[in-house]
Amino acid sequence: MGQMMKIKLALTVLAVLVSGSAAAKTWVLTSAEQGTEQGNWQISSNQLKFQGKPFSIEQKVLHGGKQEGSKIITIHSQDGLNITLSPTRGMNLLRVEGFGTRMGWDSPVKEVVNPAYINLESRNGLGWLDGFNEMMVRCGYEWTGHPVTDQGRIYTLHGKAGNTPVSQLEVEVADAAPHEIRIRGLIKESTFKKTDLQTMTELRYVPGSNSFSLHDVLTNHGDYPHDYQIIYHSNFGKPILEEGARFLAPMSGISPFNDYAKAGLKDWQTYKGPTKDFDEMVFNIKPLSDSNHQTVAAVINKAGNSGASIQFDTRQLPMLTLWKNTDTLKQGYVTGIEPGTSYAYPVTIEREQKRVKQLQPGASTAFDLTYTLLHSSEQVNDVEKRIKGIQGETKIDVRETPIAKE
Amino acid sequence: MGQMMKIKLALTVLAVLVSGSAAAKTWVLTSAEQGTEQGNWQISSNQLKFQGKPFSIEQKVLHGGKQEGSKIITIHSQDGLNITLSPTRGMNLLRVEGFGTRMGWDSPVKEVVNPAYINLESRNGLGWLDGFNEMMVRCGYEWTGHPVTDQGRIYTLHGKAGNTPVSQLEVEVADAAPHEIRIRGLIKESTFKKTDLQTMTELRYVPGSNSFSLHDVLTNHGDYPHDYQIIYHSNFGKPILEEGARFLAPMSGISPFNDYAKAGLKDWQTYKGPTKDFDEMVFNIKPLSDSNHQTVAAVINKAGNSGASIQFDTRQLPMLTLWKNTDTLKQGYVTGIEPGTSYAYPVTIEREQKRVKQLQPGASTAFDLTYTLLHSSEQVNDVEKRIKGIQGETKIDVRETPIAKE
Amino acid sequence: MGQMMKIKLALTVLAVLVSGSAAAKTWVLTSAEQGTEQGNWQISSNQLKFQGKPFSIEQKVLHGGKQEGSKIITIHSQDGLNITLSPTRGMNLLRVEGFGTRMGWDSPVKEVVNPAYINLESRNGLGWLDGFNEMMVRCGYEWTGHPVTDQGRIYTLHGKAGNTPVSQLEVEVADAAPHEIRIRGLIKESTFKKTDLQTMTELRYVPGSNSFSLHDVLTNHGDYPHDYQIIYHSNFGKPILEEGARFLAPMSGISPFNDYAKAGLKDWQTYKGPTKDFDEMVFNIKPLSDSNHQTVAAVINKAGNSGASIQFDTRQLPMLTLWKNTDTLKQGYVTGIEPGTSYAYPVTIEREQKRVKQLQPGASTAFDLTYTLLHSSEQVNDVEKRIKGIQGETKIDVRETPIAKE
Repeated sequence: MGQMMKIKLALTVLAVLVSGSAAAKTWVLTSAEQGTEQGNWQISSNQLKFQGKPFSIEQKVLHGGKQEGSKIITIHSQDGLNITLSPTRGMNLLRVEGFGTRMGWDSPVKEVVNPAYINLESRNGLGWLDGFNEMMVRCGYEWTGHPVTDQGRIYTLHGKAGNTPVSQLEVEVADAAPHEIRIRGLIKESTFKKTDLQTMTELRYVPGSNSFSLHDVLTNHGDYPHDYQIIYHSNFGKPILEEGARFLAPMSGISPFNDYAKAGLKDWQTYKGPTKDFDEMVFNIKPLSDSNHQTVAAVINKAGNSGASIQFDTRQLPMLTLWKNTDTLKQGYVTGIEPGTSYAYPVTIEREQKRVKQLQPGASTAFDLTYTLLHSSEQVNDVEKRIKGIQGETKIDVRETPIAKE
Repeated sequence: MGQMMKIKLALTVLAVLVSGSAAAKTWVLTSAEQGTEQGNWQISSNQLKFQGKPFSIEQKVLHGGKQEGSKIITIHSQDGLNITLSPTRGMNLLRVEGFGTRMGWDSPVKEVVNPAYINLESRNGLGWLDGFNEMMVRCGYEWTGHPVTDQGRIYTLHGKAGNTPVSQLEVEVADAAPHEIRIRGLIKESTFKKTDLQTMTELRYVPGSNSFSLHDVLTNHGDYPHDYQIIYHSNFGKPILEEGARFLAPMSGISPFNDYAKAGLKDWQTYKGPTKDFDEMVFNIKPLSDSNHQTVAAVINKAGNSGASIQFDTRQLPMLTLWKNTDTLKQGYVTGIEPGTSYAYPVTIEREQKRVKQLQPGASTAFDLTYTLLHSSEQVNDVEKRIKGIQGETKIDVRETPIAKE
Repeated sequence: MGQMMKIKLALTVLAVLVSGSAAAKTWVLTSAEQGTEQGNWQISSNQLKFQGKPFSIEQKVLHGGKQEGSKIITIHSQDGLNITLSPTRGMNLLRVEGFGTRMGWDSPVKEVVNPAYINLESRNGLGWLDGFNEMMVRCGYEWTGHPVTDQGRIYTLHGKAGNTPVSQLEVEVADAAPHEIRIRGLIKESTFKKTDLQTMTELRYVPGSNSFSLHDVLTNHGDYPHDYQIIYHSNFGKPILEEGARFLAPMSGISPFNDYAKAGLKDWQTYKGPTKDFDEMVFNIKPLSDSNHQTVAAVINKAGNSGASIQFDTRQLPMLTLWKNTDTLKQGYVTGIEPGTSYAYPVTIEREQKRVKQLQPGASTAFDLTYTLLHSSEQVNDVEKRIKGIQGETKIDVRETPIAKE
C-alpha cells in the first residue's frame, strides 16, 4: 500500500509540477523541504511540442555496487551535447559528449558512487578518491585542497560538496525558442555550530550548442562570517588529451606545485602521451584576464582541431591549477584545468598565504564558468587567438621554486 | 516484478498486522527480524471507528539531500499535540507542537539526516553535529559526552544511539478510551566482542493531552557486565526561549562546566535573547527530588504563561545538565535541559569521576520521563510551585570551580 | 510514473534476461554497468520444469535497523543445503544449513548490516566488528589482518571486500541434470591512483549435495603491480563446535599468534565448551598438502558424526589460521578455520615477513575452496583418514614463540 500510494502521489505531484511561469516550465525533481523525490523521470521537446533542436532530459536512479541509489540526470541534445550530471554527487558533471568527441576521462572508478558508501576520512583523508571519475567536481566550499590534519581534525581532500546529495533539484525549460535548459541543484553544507554554506548550482544549456555554462551562487546562511574555498576541478582525457596536446591560458606567472613538478617546468605547455611512472605534475598559475575580467584556459589536441575551453572570471576565481596526470590509461590519463579561489595546497597553507576568502553573514558570491567543446580548427584558432590577445605583451614569470611546501 | 511482488506482499502483511490483543491494536511497521518495512503508512481514529479526541498516526519516508530514505512518524492529535519522531535516527523526537506553541528549536540543519550520510568520527569526533536538530536526542548508551581519543580510539560526541536506525518499530493503540498511543522503537548497539546493549524505547501519548512520556528499557544482552551512559538531550528554542525566559529546577548544587561558563553563574536562572558571540554556557546540576524520587525541570517564557517541563526519576537519571546556547537565531538559539546518568564531559573523565554506570549480564534498567507543554499561567504556576516545594529549605551550593577540566 | 516505469522496465528486462546459452540459463540480478537491480526475485526447478532434486533460488531485499536495503540470496535445496549469501556484503556466506546441522555461528550482530551504516575506521580500525556474523567473510583483497596505523593511515581490520556491495550479480543454472547452480558476484576495489583489484567470486552447488565450492578470480586491472592479501575467514559454532570438538588439519608446524595463545598450545587440537573470559586464542599453521597441492582442514563434533571441512590449494592459500573463540554463547562461541595468503597480523608485519603477494598488471589469480557439511561417522572418518594420509610421517613442529609481535 505504501508503494501504491507512492505511485499515485508521484503521478499527482507530477501533474501539478508540470506548470511554471509564462517564461519557462519548471519541474521539481527533488525537494528536501517537501520530502519528495521523482525518481526515474523524463521530458522531451517532443512531449512539450517544441519546435527546433530536439532534446530530452532524463533522470535515472542507478543501481549496483557502490552506486546503489545514485541518480544521474542527462540532457540529450540530438545535434548538440549530451551532458550528464549527478544530483547525488553535488551536481558534479559526469561527462559531456557531442560533435564526435567529449569532455571527461576514464577513471578506474566506473560507478557513480553514492556518498553513503564513501568515508572521506579514509586513507588519512583521501576517501574522495573512491568516487572520483567526473569531468568536473566542485571541490569546496567549506574547504578544499590536499588533506591535512590540524588540531586532531582531518580536512579531507577537496572538501565535501562533491559528495553531497542535493537538497533541491529543479529542471527549467524556457518556453521561447531556443528553449534554454537550466538545471539547478542545491548543495547544503550545514552543520550545527560550524557552517551553513549553501550553493545553488545552475547549469545552462541551449539545445544544439557546443557550450554550456555554470552559474553557481554560494550563500553564507549563518550569522557569522565564514571562510570558503572552491576549485572547479575540470578534467579531460582522451581523445582531446594525447601526446602533443597543448595547454593554453593567458598568465602572469607559473610555478611548480612541489619539487617533483620542477622537472616539468620546461614543457608545461605540452602533454606527453600515457607515460608509465609519470604520476602527476601540478602547476600554480596566475591567470590574466581581459578588460571584463574574463579569461580562458584550454586544452587542445595535437592536430589543433579539437579541444575544450573554460571561460571564467578572475575576480571570482583568481587562481588556476594545471594538473597533468599523464600516467597510463588505466591509471587515469587525464589533465585537470582547475579555476579556483585557491591552489590545491592544504587549507592550512592556503590560509597562511591569504588565499582563503570569507563571506559575510547573509552574503552571496557567484561563480560563472562557460565550458566549450571545440570541434574544428576555426574554433580552436579563435580560442588560441583570444588567449594570445589577453596575454598581449605580458611576459610569463616562470618561477622555479614552489610557493609552499606541503 | 520485484516491485509488484513487494506491493502485494505489503498489502498482505498489512492485513495480518492490523490485529493485536483484546486490549490494544498493534502494527509492526519495521522488523529487522522479519526483514520487513511498511514504508509510507497511516492509521486514524476515524478508520478505527474510535470516538473521542480524533488522532492519526502517519509514517513517511523522506527524500532529498542527506535525508534520503529517512523515516518520520507523526502522531497528529487534533486538540492536542503533534509529535514527530524519527525511527531512522534512534526514535529521536524531532518536534512537538500544539496549543499554539512548541517544544523544539531551529537548527541550521534542516534535514532529517540519514545516518548513512553521517560519519560520527569526522571533525575529530564531532560528526554528530551534521544531524543535530531534534527536540530530544538520546545521547548514549555505549558512551556519551564530549569527544575524546583514548588509546587511538575516538569516543564520538554523544554516542551512537541517536544515529541508529531502529530494528523494530511498533505502533500500539489501546482499544479502550482514551485510546492511549504507544510507539516503540528498538535501538541496537551490537558489536561483536564489544557490546550488545539494546534499548526498547517507548513513547506514550493520550490524544488531546498536553504531555507525553518516555519509557525506555536498556538491556545488556551480553554475557559480561557493560558500562553505559545516557543523556536525554532535550532542546527548546523560540517561542518559549526568549530574553527573560527562566530555567527552573530544584537542586542541591550547580557549577560551571568549564571556565567560560563561570561568567554565567550569576544569572544562570534567566536567559538572554539571541546574543552574538555568546556561544554556549553549560552548567552541571545536582537535582533534588521528592519522596518518590521524582523531580521536575522547566523552561518558561518571560510572561510566565508558556513553557516546557520534564519530570524524571533521580534514581535513574541523577545528573542534570543545563545547556544555554543563546547565540544568534541562525547559529541555533536554544537551551538544553538534559537529565542523564552523566554530565557532558568525555567518557574518560566521567569514568574517572565515577559517574559511569554498569549493567550486569541480562540485566535491564528503565528511564522514565514525562514532557509537558505548558500553555497557561496556571500550568506554569503549578510547575513553579512544585519545584519550590521540592527545593524546600535546601540552599543551593553554587560552586565557582568546574569539577573537571576537559 | 517513475515507479510505474520502473515496474514495466523490470518486467521487460526480466523477460530478456531469462535466456542464456544452450548449456545454462543465466539471470543478471544486478549490473552496475547497466545501472540495474532486480530486487526481490525468485526462480525454482519447478518453474524451469527441471526433474531431479528440487531447488529454488531467491533474492530478498532486507529492511530494518542497519540492514535497510541489504540483499540476501538463498539457494534452497530440498534434500540438500540451504546456502545464504549477501551480495551487499561482498558475497559473504551468511549461513549454510542442511542434513540437520549447519555451518555458521551466532553473533551478537543479528542484522545483515548494510555497509552504508558501517565506518570501517571506527574504534581505531575495528568497525568491521559492527557487521561480523557470517559463516564466511572474504578478508582482503587490498589488505587484510589486524588494524594498524601506518603513516597516518589506518589499515582497517580485514580489509574492505566483505563490506563491498557487488557490482554484478549473476545466477546460472545448468540445463543438464544435475543442474549445477552458480552464483557470481563481482567485488570491485577501485580507487583512483590507488588500486583496481576486482574479484569475480563464484559459488557452485549441485542440488542435493552436502558440499559446495568457491571459485574466486582476483584480477589486477591496474597498469602497475599491486599487493594483495586474502583470508577466507570461515566460522563454525554450535552444534558442530562443542566441548570436546576437534580441529583437524595436516601441517608441518604450528605456533601461537601471540603470548596469550601460548597457554593453548598444549590442547590446540580440541575445543572447550563456552568458557567465560576465554576471549580468543589464535594459532598460525603451515598446512601440508597432497601431491595435487590439496589440503583439508576440519572441525568435527565430539561424537565424531558431524562436522565441517574445507579443502583448499596450498599454492593459492599457503597459510592457515586457527581462531578459537570459545567464549560464552552470547559473546560469540565460534571457531575460525581461515585459509589465506597471510596470517592475521597487520599488513605492516605481513609485508615485513614477506607473506604479502603481488599481482602483475592484468594478471589474475584464482582461489578454489570446497566446503563440506559432514553429517555421518563415515564422512567424518573419511576426512580424518585423508588428513592423516596427508600428514603421513611428518612431525609437527610446535613452536612456542609467536613469529611476530603486534
